[in-house]
Amino acid sequence: MTDPTYTPPKVWTWDKESGGRFAAINRPIAGPTHDKELPVGKHPFQLYSLGTPNGVKVTIMFEELLAAGHKGAEYDAWLINIGEGAQFSSGFVAVNPNSKIPALMDHSTNPPTRIFESGSMLLYLAEKFGAFLPTDHAKRTEVISWLMWQMGSAPFLGGGFGHFYAYAPEKYEYPINRYAMEVKRQLDVLDRHLAENDYMAGDEYSIADMAIWPWYGALVTGAVYDAGEFLQVHEYTNVIRWMKQVGARPAVERGKMVNRTFGKPESQLHERHDASDFDTKTQDKLEAQA
Amino acid sequence: MTDPTYTPPKVWTWDKESGGRFAAINRPIAGPTHDKELPVGKHPFQLYSLGTPNGVKVTIMFEELLAAGHKGAEYDAWLINIGEGAQFSSGFVAVNPNSKIPALMDHSTNPPTRIFESGSMLLYLAEKFGAFLPTDHAKRTEVISWLMWQMGSAPFLGGGFGHFYAYAPEKYEYPINRYAMEVKRQLDVLDRHLAENDYMAGDEYSIADMAIWPWYGALVTGAVYDAGEFLQVHEYTNVIRWMKQVGARPAVERGKMVNRTFGKPESQLHERHDASDFDTKTQDKLEAQA
Repeated sequence: MTDPTYTPPKVWTWDKESGGRFAAINRPIAGPTHDKELPVGKHPFQLYSLGTPNGVKVTIMFEELLAAGHKGAEYDAWLINIGEGAQFSSGFVAVNPNSKIPALMDHSTNPPTRIFESGSMLLYLAEKFGAFLPTDHAKRTEVISWLMWQMGSAPFLGGGFGHFYAYAPEKYEYPINRYAMEVKRQLDVLDRHLAENDYMAGDEYSIADMAIWPWYGALVTGAVYDAGEFLQVHEYTNVIRWMKQVGARPAVERGKMVNRTFGKPESQLHERHDASDFDTKTQDKLEAQA
Repeated sequence: MTDPTYTPPKVWTWDKESGGRFAAINRPIAGPTHDKELPVGKHPFQLYSLGTPNGVKVTIMFEELLAAGHKGAEYDAWLINIGEGAQFSSGFVAVNPNSKIPALMDHSTNPPTRIFESGSMLLYLAEKFGAFLPTDHAKRTEVISWLMWQMGSAPFLGGGFGHFYAYAPEKYEYPINRYAMEVKRQLDVLDRHLAENDYMAGDEYSIADMAIWPWYGALVTGAVYDAGEFLQVHEYTNVIRWMKQVGARPAVERGKMVNRTFGKPESQLHERHDASDFDTKTQDKLEAQA
């Protein structure tokens, strides 16, 4: 891919045709493109999201909170179609000025509170319900360090490796090498840690697991980027053990289905407004298996 | 840079020669490369760092806490030479298994507490001292959302744009375009927000400013990547206003100097073990100006 003839111009300009699979939704400017309010349902929490790893972190947390008996965690999950630019509506930008899913409103406060960034939502909900975040000072610190590790590391997995390996218009050798090396390093960081710990922050399942699992769990199963062989993910045996352990939790199975728009139809619950919404999908699944 | 002849191999392998300026310190494996303990000084906090934007976030916070009268925030700042692989010592990996600066130990707890990831340190210190994080629930939430925004966004600035624009062995057009667009979008997110807010989370200076300023403030001054003209940073007038406002704080000026190994000699305080360590540099500065 070397092209010694390329020299960046003095001033970068926007070529609207470039950018690969997500060219239509990448822009060099922020702010809304159109006026549209967001819908508001009956529950205290209103989530505007999509079933990508960043979205799934939060739906897993809601399902875990509800499974643990926190009735105040009832939520409506609305589908934001990022391919159609729904993240650029005036209503969405007012909740998340960064125009990325997920975006969350807590209507149980007066006035309602906006929360953006999935990591911020996990911490907000953990503190609000006193759940999935240890009260022990050292353990709590460890959870937050790993949560921050996920926030700072996954852009190299998703925005780096995933983009260049799976989505860019052509295969460019240098960036694929660069990000493959970094993703393998990250998997090894996790693998060494999980060799000595049941969960990310020790013996307690926490929001650190919920943050890391949707990205790195999906990577080692091949569910994202189809890069299992390329990255030799079978080497990371402790990550695979933990991936299965977390993935077997019923709340995680439900969280994965919410706002999902790919895969088998019975795995997709496009919107979630009531616990019973999952029942129809369970029925679909039984029928598909029959 | 198009090279239609490149097809990724079935299995990625490590070519130790590739990787540009930072090839020597990038590895696809985690863990220590050598046995070496970290030094421990006399203060409660032991910081192992370097004067990059991620390091500066934390030294600014320590200097702000001390300036605000929190004597318990006294710290030793040790220099970690990442070019020589000091982040791969057994001692460093025990504090930060991710082998990135900064890494922090709090010796005021029993046993001492490790904290890794700069965002985790900011939150830890803010909560420990009850400072630079509003107690008002909505404001606190806004600070944490912006802090998380920084953690998830700066990898596109540093690991993406900075790498491909300034450090990669050749200029590759597609990645430079990709990351230039994203960085301009991020600057516009900040600019629109700072048009209506004095600081990132409203009227109070907070850890959100301390997280964002070292990266985006340095970008608009041209202090990192020399990309001011390329990205037309003068357009982001609200970011520039805020950059100057935060940069004028004496604690920020001091924080910038700690563990700094580039720029004018009088701006570099390689290690900080006492408040008086800055005095020699002030003397150097006066002499340089004379």
